Amino acid sequence: MKIYTDPYLLQDFLRTSKKAGKTIGFVPTMGFLHDGHASLMAHARAQCDILVVSIYVNPLQFSPNEDLDSYPRNPQNDEQICAQQSVDIIFRPETLYDHNHATFIRVERLSTGLCGGSRPTHFEGVCTVVARLFGFIQPDIAVFGEKDFQQLAIIRQLVRDLAMPITIIAAPLIRDTDGVALSSRNKYLSPEQRKKAQSISRTLFHIQQEVNTGNTNIHTLRKLARNQLQVDELDYLDFVDPLQLTPVKDIVEPTQLLIAAWVGKTRLIDNIRLTP
Amino acid sequence: MKIYTDPYLLQDFLRTSKKAGKTIGFVPTMGFLHDGHASLMAHARAQCDILVVSIYVNPLQFSPNEDLDSYPRNPQNDEQICAQQSVDIIFRPETLYDHNHATFIRVERLSTGLCGGSRPTHFEGVCTVVARLFGFIQPDIAVFGEKDFQQLAIIRQLVRDLAMPITIIAAPLIRDTDGVALSSRNKYLSPEQRKKAQSISRTLFHIQQEVNTGNTNIHTLRKLARNQLQVDELDYLDFVDPLQLTPVKDIVEPTQLLIAAWVGKTRLIDNIRLTP
Repeated sequence: MKIYTDPYLLQDFLRTSKKAGKTIGFVPTMGFLHDGHASLMAHARAQCDILVVSIYVNPLQFSPNEDLDSYPRNPQNDEQICAQQSVDIIFRPETLYDHNHATFIRVERLSTGLCGGSRPTHFEGVCTVVARLFGFIQPDIAVFGEKDFQQLAIIRQLVRDLAMPITIIAAPLIRDTDGVALSSRNKYLSPEQRKKAQSISRTLFHIQQEVNTGNTNIHTLRKLARNQLQVDELDYLDFVDPLQLTPVKDIVEPTQLLIAAWVGKTRLIDNIRLTP
Repeated sequence: MKIYTDPYLLQDFLRTSKKAGKTIGFVPTMGFLHDGHASLMAHARAQCDILVVSIYVNPLQFSPNEDLDSYPRNPQNDEQICAQQSVDIIFRPETLYDHNHATFIRVERLSTGLCGGSRPTHFEGVCTVVARLFGFIQPDIAVFGEKDFQQLAIIRQLVRDLAMPITIIAAPLIRDTDGVALSSRNKYLSPEQRKKAQSISRTLFHIQQEVNTGNTNIHTLRKLARNQLQVDELDYLDFVDPLQLTPVKDIVEPTQLLIAAWVGKTRLIDNIRLTP
């Protein structure tokens, strides 16, 4: 396993490898890796010759009041997890942007609701860093987790619209034994907050059960969900079309239920597929 | 010479060629080709195995009040010019965007002044179409003309910021025998308007001569230029740093003089390098 910090050296190496016929798989991360990331790597590992994992806490996707500075880091553990997943290259740049960086990418419609509502510049930052990483790495495949459901939809649209020759692979969300979706930000939670966080996945499962038993009325389901949640503040709880991310009126087709909520100062997101 | 209209068939063909070790050169155009375009093709031809010329009048870079619908077309002549320049592939799509296209790219700073002042959405349209064309074609080199001086600077920044593995080549502006910079839009000009158009290049040459003889005071030069111009309306006349496109106060370094002006309903642009 090699570690690159210089993006241009990495780009040179990968271009040579590609010319030699190797396929490149890519998993972008912000580090503080956990089993969720390991699962993304395993998906990628199975479908490429050279597996690249980037570790970069992208300032562009944080707004000034967010947790950029306190975002957790653990480089040694990151390396261990990558090694366990037979990663070939860790790309861990100090900074990724030129000092005069000026190019920004937005994806309309998909970026406006849900997390885009409370984090209006977030997805522009995500799209811009992903496009720049794709530029350096030129992957054949890239794996994104369904945990960040809206991000996945936006990246798919970005890749389609810019005709990038990259296959985007979705990997399922991974949960801890207590149901909480794996996230680097779970580290922020006190034991008491962890209990509150559990109410998010419990709510999702409960609603899924309701739908399974024939309850498809969104008004009722929303009420049930809100009663179940024990978070400090709900950001959103939305039933949407899984591709367009537009709100649905009743659950007649497969529908994604997405929740974002605050527990203390930690913002958590989770989601589940509802199939009527 | 092959003509593709389907971008995905073109992408497939070029991917296979690239895997076989061929290098790809690309010249994006809006058709109605002239000797200026031929010169771009000649620059590209010398540096690639497969030369692709796109012909697409990109609606995204026109605002509603501009000449999208009347933009001149001459497919047969376009094919002839491409054949003369030993082009391998003409890419002439009917439409380039998916019906639900949602991704847009902006380059800050460089896009705001000059043509960006009077055409505020123009360069976003240019960047978006160029990125999508680059996506389909994956060129090793792409050639842009210095006639569109601001566009060239913006594309360079775009390619650098998104780490695209593409070499951008600048080709010099080509003039007609009467000094007028070659442009598809010259077709709009009546003989009388053509005379007015000539005053633009005459002004540029005059200022260049003044600088050559030691007159580097921008205040004086600007006055001289305005007296020389016989256009119907001046959009801008700016002395800028050739890389940053920021206004200069005095001509102490190589400086670009850019003019945009209306002759009747036709907007013309031209520019020249001033070296003190």
